[in-house]
Amino acid sequence: MYAMAVDIMGGDNGSQPLVDAIIKFLKKHDDVHIIAVGQKEQLERLKGICETIEAKDVVPMTAGALDVLRMKESSMMKAITLVKEGKANGVVSCGSTGGFLASSTISLKMIKGVKRAALVTAMPLQEKGKYVTLLDCGANIENSCEELSQFAVMGSLYSKVVCNIKNPRVYLLSNGGEDEKGTTLIKEANKVLKENTKINFIGNIEAREAILDKNVDVIVADGFSGNVFLKSIEGTAKYFSKLIKDAFKKNIFTKIGYLFSKKGIDDMKKTMDYKSVGGALLLGVNGVVVKAHGNSDAQSFESALNVLYKMIKNDVVNEIKKGIE
Amino acid sequence: MYAMAVDIMGGDNGSQPLVDAIIKFLKKHDDVHIIAVGQKEQLERLKGICETIEAKDVVPMTAGALDVLRMKESSMMKAITLVKEGKANGVVSCGSTGGFLASSTISLKMIKGVKRAALVTAMPLQEKGKYVTLLDCGANIENSCEELSQFAVMGSLYSKVVCNIKNPRVYLLSNGGEDEKGTTLIKEANKVLKENTKINFIGNIEAREAILDKNVDVIVADGFSGNVFLKSIEGTAKYFSKLIKDAFKKNIFTKIGYLFSKKGIDDMKKTMDYKSVGGALLLGVNGVVVKAHGNSDAQSFESALNVLYKMIKNDVVNEIKKGIE
Repeated sequence: MYAMAVDIMGGDNGSQPLVDAIIKFLKKHDDVHIIAVGQKEQLERLKGICETIEAKDVVPMTAGALDVLRMKESSMMKAITLVKEGKANGVVSCGSTGGFLASSTISLKMIKGVKRAALVTAMPLQEKGKYVTLLDCGANIENSCEELSQFAVMGSLYSKVVCNIKNPRVYLLSNGGEDEKGTTLIKEANKVLKENTKINFIGNIEAREAILDKNVDVIVADGFSGNVFLKSIEGTAKYFSKLIKDAFKKNIFTKIGYLFSKKGIDDMKKTMDYKSVGGALLLGVNGVVVKAHGNSDAQSFESALNVLYKMIKNDVVNEIKKGIE
Repeated sequence: MYAMAVDIMGGDNGSQPLVDAIIKFLKKHDDVHIIAVGQKEQLERLKGICETIEAKDVVPMTAGALDVLRMKESSMMKAITLVKEGKANGVVSCGSTGGFLASSTISLKMIKGVKRAALVTAMPLQEKGKYVTLLDCGANIENSCEELSQFAVMGSLYSKVVCNIKNPRVYLLSNGGEDEKGTTLIKEANKVLKENTKINFIGNIEAREAILDKNVDVIVADGFSGNVFLKSIEGTAKYFSKLIKDAFKKNIFTKIGYLFSKKGIDDMKKTMDYKSVGGALLLGVNGVVVKAHGNSDAQSFESALNVLYKMIKNDVVNEIKKGIE
């Protein structure tokens, strides 16, 4: 049995969509033991379905690491502690990103040999159903070459396990595809990555190609650039979505047009739906830590549970240990 | 009279769309003297309309700075030289970006006091018709605080002159809006920008908000981050455009839907059309240097001519001199 600690508090849409997701998930998996942590009344529907642990407090969205560590009676801290005490293999939460990631890192500690934990996400780019792994998305700000090289190893493992890609092709985000492009850090990292025999490093890649090139499986970036890259994509996607909506609202004909093309447009929306990825994952700590989207609905929270499940089942923590050695 | 040197060679679509643009532009402006430089047969239609200078050679797209500087008989180098010799106030070309920018910088030299030239572009984000100024888009890789502060001054001038914004609100690209967010460089630059009385600095901004926030007029970034930001937007826009096309191609109903909603969709495409901006501008050198898109058509090249015209008419080179002192 795989044990998963689930913090059901702190989501923008309340706890019940998360409860729905747990119920649905457990129907599909008989090899999972879920420990749901939350306020008494929110746990009601889970009684008899999975283990439940009551928590008095809820971590506010603005909470930092120290706040969370101090809130011992919060659902988030109780869920993290279950992993720390070996009662669960991993934890998922929709609550405060900063607070959750930092308190998980401090609480669970880094895997031996890992220099820095990284936040990884799978982006639904390129062909439908194909995900591109990006790390670090912003757990760090500045990184060293060695850290980027470790990110490449961890990202490859994630791509194998979560995205089902056999020999993931790893690229380094830069301002051009040539080896000599990039900052001093990127130029050095290019050399270090080339020498890393544990990964299938292809070379540098410019942001535009990183999005459009079908060969890309893993994109390695320092935390700052990774954040700029991911947030630019999110911002443009959001901007475009609004433009599309406005385009159909223009007049009666465009409105009729929408009714006719609804199927195509809805499929497109699904492709672009970042929710389907299930959130981001903290790699490099002793335990699987999944940060679900703050505005998770039942479907996206189920995706987050699936990511957690896959990572635990494939023993990614030990795989990283071996890969980093 | 304002004198503009125009390199009509090196565009992906040949010279004739550029010739069309020149003819159209001159019909609207009687205060401009254009000197078109290109191969003899390409200049044919411009005889009697503007000054023409023949050039034997064309700079290849892959040419670097040194190649261009050596090709004294090329249309690009001849056009740049017109500015150097004071015969023109500015120059525009569709040719090799790297070659054109670097040879312009070396040939025309930096304005006294300017540490680094920056590549600036106006992005058609936010409400229709409103442009957001971004610099540096990739003329540099790493930059110092002082350079970023100068970029802010140059970007504000550009925003005033080209985008018609009175008191441009300047933001610094970071991984969050708070002052303490960002790399060591960004944190220091935040302080320096705050102390710069020549600009209206608002604060740091995350990439997502930089795209969506209607208050943003100028985004300052180091060359590497600016490149990641701009290329991510371009890549996502391209990816989305393909998704939209696919959505309408799905079946007979979605195809009918397109016919109905064409007006809205076409308007949307226009809003997203990066061509309407006319290319990018090199700021900080002695002369106005406009890099038009390699795949310029008549309309987008006319935009580039307009950018060049506005910058010359508003004496931006001298304004930068004053602003940097």
